[in-house]
Amino acid sequence: MPERLKKIIRDVPDFPKKGILFKDITTLCKDPLSFQIMVDLLAHRYIDKKIDLIVGIEARGFIVGAALAYRIGAGIVLVRKPGKLPHKTNSASYTLEYGEDTLEIHKDAIEKGQNVIIADDLLATGGTAAAVTELVEGLGGNIVESAFIVELDDLKGRDKLNHDVFSLIHY
Amino acid sequence: MPERLKKIIRDVPDFPKKGILFKDITTLCKDPLSFQIMVDLLAHRYIDKKIDLIVGIEARGFIVGAALAYRIGAGIVLVRKPGKLPHKTNSASYTLEYGEDTLEIHKDAIEKGQNVIIADDLLATGGTAAAVTELVEGLGGNIVESAFIVELDDLKGRDKLNHDVFSLIHY
Repeated sequence: MPERLKKIIRDVPDFPKKGILFKDITTLCKDPLSFQIMVDLLAHRYIDKKIDLIVGIEARGFIVGAALAYRIGAGIVLVRKPGKLPHKTNSASYTLEYGEDTLEIHKDAIEKGQNVIIADDLLATGGTAAAVTELVEGLGGNIVESAFIVELDDLKGRDKLNHDVFSLIHY
Repeated sequence: MPERLKKIIRDVPDFPKKGILFKDITTLCKDPLSFQIMVDLLAHRYIDKKIDLIVGIEARGFIVGAALAYRIGAGIVLVRKPGKLPHKTNSASYTLEYGEDTLEIHKDAIEKGQNVIIADDLLATGGTAAAVTELVEGLGGNIVESAFIVELDDLKGRDKLNHDVFSLIHY
């Protein structure tokens, strides 16, 4: 089944900058059957794991996270860019190739001991997911696993994470 | 049922700026039962309407849109801020209180004649939804309805739209 998903993901050369071959999941998302398979494959993995919350990372992680949360009967929590969340937040910064970026979570988004899956479309260098890990653990959440649609194995992003990682598709 | 949803949405005063009482749906999204009710109420409305695609508006519209698309067996199409979509795009601009904003859609996101629901969390003045209408119709999509979690009735956003509008909660 992941072969169908792999085939429908579109390669876009030189995005967001020259030399990067971007894995575009919009072609997967707009195909009803592929989208359903994608969500179901993740759901079957987590549906009996007593997951309380899916933490979706802005913005494509919201797509994966919301559908998965609905499917397994969990809540969905948003990790967003600075200034987007309206209530009191915690923040975590991470290094990019040039400069730094910051993510925020509501202070009351997770209760201590809740079982959490972190969800995003892509695991590359792992900087983003490591920052989200810091945010979730800072609130006392128990990270059961991080789940991605696509993982770029060469970049070894999973080595930056202190918990299990699962990806539907590997390049 | 919408009473449960209305009660769980949080009012945040003075966000994003002084004088605005922001309707924060993150408290709804993180509560599994409320989130499920929200998605199901929309799904029951559309499940027998032969909907091909949900068009989700960045970023909270992705939450509503992705879960709804999964539930009714549709695809999910993304409308995003400029520069975020990797392939060829069409764009539409709309006026804000001060200045202008632009949204983009992939040129191949919708096939002519496909039945589309536009999904977002909030209908306020309707400027965003009108721009998305332009994008969807520009690709030949047939807009069956726009669906929102919250509508601020006083702002008369629905008058800006040339198609049916449905909102779960009205203020």
